[in-house]
Amino acid sequence: MDVALHCSAESPAERAHAIANVGNLLDARADASVVFVANGDGVLALTADAEQADRVGALADRGVAFRACANSLRSRGIDETSLAEGVETVPAGVGELVGLQAAGSSYIKVP
Amino acid sequence: MDVALHCSAESPAERAHAIANVGNLLDARADASVVFVANGDGVLALTADAEQADRVGALADRGVAFRACANSLRSRGIDETSLAEGVETVPAGVGELVGLQAAGSSYIKVP
Amino acid sequence: MDVALHCSAESPAERAHAIANVGNLLDARADASVVFVANGDGVLALTADAEQADRVGALADRGVAFRACANSLRSRGIDETSLAEGVETVPAGVGELVGLQAAGSSYIKVP
Repeated sequence: MDVALHCSAESPAERAHAIANVGNLLDARADASVVFVANGDGVLALTADAEQADRVGALADRGVAFRACANSLRSRGIDETSLAEGVETVPAGVGELVGLQAAGSSYIKVP
Repeated sequence: MDVALHCSAESPAERAHAIANVGNLLDARADASVVFVANGDGVLALTADAEQADRVGALADRGVAFRACANSLRSRGIDETSLAEGVETVPAGVGELVGLQAAGSSYIKVP
Repeated sequence: MDVALHCSAESPAERAHAIANVGNLLDARADASVVFVANGDGVLALTADAEQADRVGALADRGVAFRACANSLRSRGIDETSLAEGVETVPAGVGELVGLQAAGSSYIKVP
C-alpha cells in the first residue's frame, strides 16, 4: 500500500505534527510504503539541524523515503548538503506528488 | 461516489469552514457518501460541546460518518465520551485515510 | 495526466505560493492538464485586482483552468464579474474536486 504524504507547513509545530503523523501511519499500517514529500517551508523539517532530525532518521530507518523539493530549497537558500542524511531532492514537489499518485499512491496532506 | 474529507485545522474558524464544506458537498452531490476524518486539532470540531455540534449532528442525520483519531484525542486529553453523538473513533486518522482511498474514495483536505 | 490543485488558503502569502506551485508543476510536467479549484479565501487569488492576476492570466494562457467556488464568492460578497479574465465559477469547490478525481485526476492541496 503506497502512500504519499505532502507537507508544506509554515509553522514549526505543524511540521513536528506532520513528522509525528508518519510514525502513527507506520504503527497503524505496517504494510504502508511511505514517501514523504516536502515543499515550501515543509523542507525545513528535513534539514540536518532541524529539531526533528533524529525522528526523521529513525523513520528513514523504518523505510520511509524523504524527498525535498529543489525549487523550495533554492528559494530559501538551503544547500542540498544541509539536508538530513538519507533525504533526497526532487526537481519539484508538486511534480513528484503527481507522479506518485499516477503510480497508485494514496495522498494525504499532513498535518 | 465515496469521499473522504480530512480535517486537521488548528483554528476554530477553519474547523467551522470545514464543517460547512460537508454541507456544501452534500448539496452539490446528493450521491456522495461522505466520511469526515478528523485528526490533530480537527478532533475539536467533533466534541459534544463544540460550537458546531448541532451542525455535526444534522450532517450525521444526512448520512455523513464522522471519525476522530484516537491518537489525537489521547494527546489532547479528550475522552471518547466527550465526542458528539454518533462520532466514532479510529486508531489513527492517517491510517483511516489510506484505507478509505485504497477502497476507492476521493480525498479532499478541508477546509 | 490530469491534476486537480485545491487552494483554500487564508493568507495572501500562501495564495501566492499556491499560484507559484502551478508554474512549477507545468515546468516539471509539460504533459500535465491542470485544473486549479479555489474555495474559501482561495477565491481571493482569482479576482481581477488580485496581486497575482498577471500570473493567473499567464498560466491560463498555458492551458490551466481556473475555477472559483460560487458558494465562497457569494459568502464574501464577490461578484462573478470581479474575477480575472478566463476564471470560471463552479457551484461548489468541493463538489468539483470530487468530480475531477472521479474522472481520474490526481489531487494536491496547495500550497
